[in-house]
Amino acid sequence: MNFASDNWAGAHPAISQRLLEVAAGFSAPYGASSLDRRIEKRFNELFEREVAVYFVSTGTAANSLALAAVNRPGGVSFCHREAHMLEDECGAPEFFTHGARLAPVDGGNGKIDPQNLKAEIERFPPDFVHAGQPMAISITQATEIGTLYQPDEIAAIAEIAQAHDLPLHLDGARIANALVALGLTPAEMTWKRGVDIVSFGATKNGCWCAEALVFMNPELAKDLPFIRKRAAQLLSKSRFIAAQFDAYLDDGLWLELARYANAMAQRLQHGINNSTHARLAWRAEANEVYAILDKVHAGRLRENGAVFYQWNPPRSEPGLLDQHEVLARLVTSFATEADQVDRFLELIG
Amino acid sequence: MNFASDNWAGAHPAISQRLLEVAAGFSAPYGASSLDRRIEKRFNELFEREVAVYFVSTGTAANSLALAAVNRPGGVSFCHREAHMLEDECGAPEFFTHGARLAPVDGGNGKIDPQNLKAEIERFPPDFVHAGQPMAISITQATEIGTLYQPDEIAAIAEIAQAHDLPLHLDGARIANALVALGLTPAEMTWKRGVDIVSFGATKNGCWCAEALVFMNPELAKDLPFIRKRAAQLLSKSRFIAAQFDAYLDDGLWLELARYANAMAQRLQHGINNSTHARLAWRAEANEVYAILDKVHAGRLRENGAVFYQWNPPRSEPGLLDQHEVLARLVTSFATEADQVDRFLELIG
Amino acid sequence: MNFASDNWAGAHPAISQRLLEVAAGFSAPYGASSLDRRIEKRFNELFEREVAVYFVSTGTAANSLALAAVNRPGGVSFCHREAHMLEDECGAPEFFTHGARLAPVDGGNGKIDPQNLKAEIERFPPDFVHAGQPMAISITQATEIGTLYQPDEIAAIAEIAQAHDLPLHLDGARIANALVALGLTPAEMTWKRGVDIVSFGATKNGCWCAEALVFMNPELAKDLPFIRKRAAQLLSKSRFIAAQFDAYLDDGLWLELARYANAMAQRLQHGINNSTHARLAWRAEANEVYAILDKVHAGRLRENGAVFYQWNPPRSEPGLLDQHEVLARLVTSFATEADQVDRFLELIG
Amino acid sequence: MNFASDNWAGAHPAISQRLLEVAAGFSAPYGASSLDRRIEKRFNELFEREVAVYFVSTGTAANSLALAAVNRPGGVSFCHREAHMLEDECGAPEFFTHGARLAPVDGGNGKIDPQNLKAEIERFPPDFVHAGQPMAISITQATEIGTLYQPDEIAAIAEIAQAHDLPLHLDGARIANALVALGLTPAEMTWKRGVDIVSFGATKNGCWCAEALVFMNPELAKDLPFIRKRAAQLLSKSRFIAAQFDAYLDDGLWLELARYANAMAQRLQHGINNSTHARLAWRAEANEVYAILDKVHAGRLRENGAVFYQWNPPRSEPGLLDQHEVLARLVTSFATEADQVDRFLELIG
Repeated sequence: MNFASDNWAGAHPAISQRLLEVAAGFSAPYGASSLDRRIEKRFNELFEREVAVYFVSTGTAANSLALAAVNRPGGVSFCHREAHMLEDECGAPEFFTHGARLAPVDGGNGKIDPQNLKAEIERFPPDFVHAGQPMAISITQATEIGTLYQPDEIAAIAEIAQAHDLPLHLDGARIANALVALGLTPAEMTWKRGVDIVSFGATKNGCWCAEALVFMNPELAKDLPFIRKRAAQLLSKSRFIAAQFDAYLDDGLWLELARYANAMAQRLQHGINNSTHARLAWRAEANEVYAILDKVHAGRLRENGAVFYQWNPPRSEPGLLDQHEVLARLVTSFATEADQVDRFLELIG
Repeated sequence: MNFASDNWAGAHPAISQRLLEVAAGFSAPYGASSLDRRIEKRFNELFEREVAVYFVSTGTAANSLALAAVNRPGGVSFCHREAHMLEDECGAPEFFTHGARLAPVDGGNGKIDPQNLKAEIERFPPDFVHAGQPMAISITQATEIGTLYQPDEIAAIAEIAQAHDLPLHLDGARIANALVALGLTPAEMTWKRGVDIVSFGATKNGCWCAEALVFMNPELAKDLPFIRKRAAQLLSKSRFIAAQFDAYLDDGLWLELARYANAMAQRLQHGINNSTHARLAWRAEANEVYAILDKVHAGRLRENGAVFYQWNPPRSEPGLLDQHEVLARLVTSFATEADQVDRFLELIG
Repeated sequence: MNFASDNWAGAHPAISQRLLEVAAGFSAPYGASSLDRRIEKRFNELFEREVAVYFVSTGTAANSLALAAVNRPGGVSFCHREAHMLEDECGAPEFFTHGARLAPVDGGNGKIDPQNLKAEIERFPPDFVHAGQPMAISITQATEIGTLYQPDEIAAIAEIAQAHDLPLHLDGARIANALVALGLTPAEMTWKRGVDIVSFGATKNGCWCAEALVFMNPELAKDLPFIRKRAAQLLSKSRFIAAQFDAYLDDGLWLELARYANAMAQRLQHGINNSTHARLAWRAEANEVYAILDKVHAGRLRENGAVFYQWNPPRSEPGLLDQHEVLARLVTSFATEADQVDRFLELIG
Repeated sequence: MNFASDNWAGAHPAISQRLLEVAAGFSAPYGASSLDRRIEKRFNELFEREVAVYFVSTGTAANSLALAAVNRPGGVSFCHREAHMLEDECGAPEFFTHGARLAPVDGGNGKIDPQNLKAEIERFPPDFVHAGQPMAISITQATEIGTLYQPDEIAAIAEIAQAHDLPLHLDGARIANALVALGLTPAEMTWKRGVDIVSFGATKNGCWCAEALVFMNPELAKDLPFIRKRAAQLLSKSRFIAAQFDAYLDDGLWLELARYANAMAQRLQHGINNSTHARLAWRAEANEVYAILDKVHAGRLRENGAVFYQWNPPRSEPGLLDQHEVLARLVTSFATEADQVDRFLELIG
């Protein structure tokens, strides 16, 4: 009964198998192999346009290098107050941008509120050197709390981005889960709604180390090869990342794994909704379910082998819990087993 | 006939197999799994003392974070003029140290000359703020040109380091090749000779992504967990790096692979020494052979399928080549096949 | 009728005169002159203990180097949401600390609320690398909105700082105004209440370029000489900063100038309090008066030659203004003339 | 008999007087005053074109922000091996450029040799991420050893800069001394020979804190306002820097002071050339004379009150001194008195 995180899962057999297959022989290192090149092309197909793709070893690297690519002196990047890059990356985005600031924007359901975003950006009048200058907007899809931006919500933020000439980044650590939940293609959820840069994560969904930084406009990435090398993110045996993506994208494996993870989350959600001793904190839309449990029940679940994190309630939801309750984050993945979900629900009662 | 680099090789089957084995099930991420912990302990045994070990995804990351850990304002780090960190890391060490300087030190055979090192350090009088302040010394073992520091040569540099209270770092991208060539244990080649920090590379010797940053004195690394996370080098599924090291260290596999690579280099060296159309630039001591070929021969080798890099002669060897000649770097690895070596030698004639 | 800012004023004649006097002859540069040394000693007397003093050219430099001196990887520094370093320094503190984060803390009257501070610090559990690690707390005295921390309020924040082993910095761009308003000595307002580092500003109070960074514990500043030089803040003719401080501190000139500026602010406050067309936003405690004017009146004042900034209401005071009103910041200084204050008040009516 | 450095001198009376005059009244801070604007325009006249001018407080700041303005990821900036920015700024250029590298270029007489420069730049093939990418060339005029680039020598370096699309920076800490020695206008010595950015120093030549960073092409400086503010180099009472430049440029004062300093250097040089106990290390062309003295004489001079620095011989001149000799650097300025020169020469004998 492990619902701690999708990065507690290992690697899907198809991924491991492909790594085994490409292990023999000699290949050009540092992203220059024919496999690397081929996978780069697959991303063009995936996004239905010519994109620039850079493999890196962590999602934090993808997010940080995205911002580094569009960095400006005194730069300020806007993201949701609960965004992973703000809360959980130890200041890596600031480090890789030499101190650009992440400005938190509030909004319900884990999503940036466009009115708040506008107001925050307007705190930076052009040429007012004392405040700094806006440089990017970043959204997370699926969000940190398992909700989803609807396509028109992305478009609304993109409109603000364009009005201020700011690139729009999408942190897609769980992009596959979002795509299948919304029934959208990568193109439909990104550049067709105004997204410029995507952190395309695969690690949480069945790979063990496969993250791609994708620029819709390759011109925006022209310094990225130097930025990546200098960031110690150009892997010599980069082809093993390419190989993971190869297997991941083959025959829609990635979408299948995401669909499965989402289905497990829905199973959890359904059960919690019908339970007497737990309730949903909000509606789960991808592969993360947030449940409110009383402390006694939470302890009992743990004693019985359930693994999950207790989460801080979002700042925007100060009254979410009473003093006897805790917020439990339950994450599903390709490795979640249905009977484990059922056993967990049974224990909740 | 691929002698381009040891990072053109893939992964040894034993490594791939282990990755397959650990892929199932759930494990704590970010280095907290029992496998991660177990491999950390193996490093204690390996080095015969309690060390602090941090897995990272590239050798450049290991080198850069080593320096970041001992960084000082206005810091200057001394390394050989041809060192990888100076020539081939796109300024990553400067990036991760917020602009510390790498001061090149000259010396024959790819090795820092102790007298030159002393003279360079003395250019920085204590408390003279204009010049900056020394912060570290770094040596590469095996060196960039395939030579080796003898144990007493390491000790001589360590003595200078200690006299100036500077930590001594060893870039061990090819540490296994050096150890087996010298017949030393890791302890004997490192802390017993005064080395404080080791970039312990396994990627070039049969893994596909496995680098460890090892501090002989864990106190020196107390901020490393934050430095690493912030550097985007804390892999969520870190256990897959641990697994590679596990297989790598099992039953001396790593030493066996290094011995094999070195033997292939000796085979090459012996053949070149006896050839009429090529000569050695200097004596190969690990798994890199530098040969001087005339341009016509070099071209013919390439036409026949040989893959190798033409190298810039070291600055210390200005008269190495005549105008008809090129310097060829020939690197062997666990994946080099003896018959390919022989065919190459045959083609040289 | 210039109430725009105390940095719109020039230099007090006694300061200019002293600069003239020290202009002749030769002196050791880079802070090594006998005058520099003598003024450093004056700071020991001023603070009644041995302190480490570093002259710099701007308040932003003082604040930024204070944080740089106590920087940690993944470091987070806490300050009030409206703090100058957060709102008006273009990310300089982040720049000089290589990306440390400034975490805003809310609190009424422009002052950090201790309960909020505690809660914010507790968001960073020790050794939890994802969040980063607290590194400093900074308060501003007088605050950005012209209020003052009472001595016991400083002590309450210092207690939290000490409990978390964090240095406490005081941004004293207007420290003289605070001292005379509270009737405290520098020692009483700083280290006797637990302040560790002070940005001691003199530029706004009659000098033209004189800022000192003062460490109560010189050990904390041991790398500062290198940090300052590297930050391009070691002036070659540093003695001219020393000379300004010399004249500034002579015979209590600095306190006299601050008293005068505060008195002009009280005169303004008194008049506004009794006016029919303006009201105070909050009580002015040093040399900044915040008045609420209706827009028509504000325009008329400007037409009649009054110079002042329209200010954004603090985020903590969303209902401060109605739609016909503006918030005017009125700053006094040694150069403010009483008849100009009176004329301004007369115009308000 | 003070020949230690031109920054040991104080401020010329005309400069001090002007500071006194502008001290009264109110002016817009942060470079927005009418005086600031007027002096910016004077620079247009001075350079005979529209330039972008930014005042900063130190020469190190000017040099560092020049490079920061043209920074690139993995950037490498070329300068002479003995350049001030490389030897004497504690890594500030690296700091302000987030770790760009300064690559030393050798050349006789303190000047970059164009052939060496070409060779160094060619070590960075385009798109070869491992090496980094060239970003700027910097020359110093007058050089650190008191010599001068002739106009055609500047042009030769500019030609290389243009061929590689690199901006050419001129560190003019002693630009006035160079201009009068060569009989050139600022335009003739800079953009007419291909210089793009100038650190225009006035501190060493009679001001106490007045440095201007001048961009021939304002477009290149479009982010400089943010870079400067963030670098803590935007002085609030910036008008006092403007005032110094105002007096400095009035009626050719600056050129007169430089001519005087150069004449004092020539007087020293002539005397040393005719002395029996000292000889010139090389010909002085501006306001720095390098003399070789035997140690006994050097000591005697000091005992008799002469102040000067003993200098490390340039790396390019290893055989300059015998073991009984020292290299003395003798710097003259507007404050040097002829009778002190004569007394010094008399003491040399």
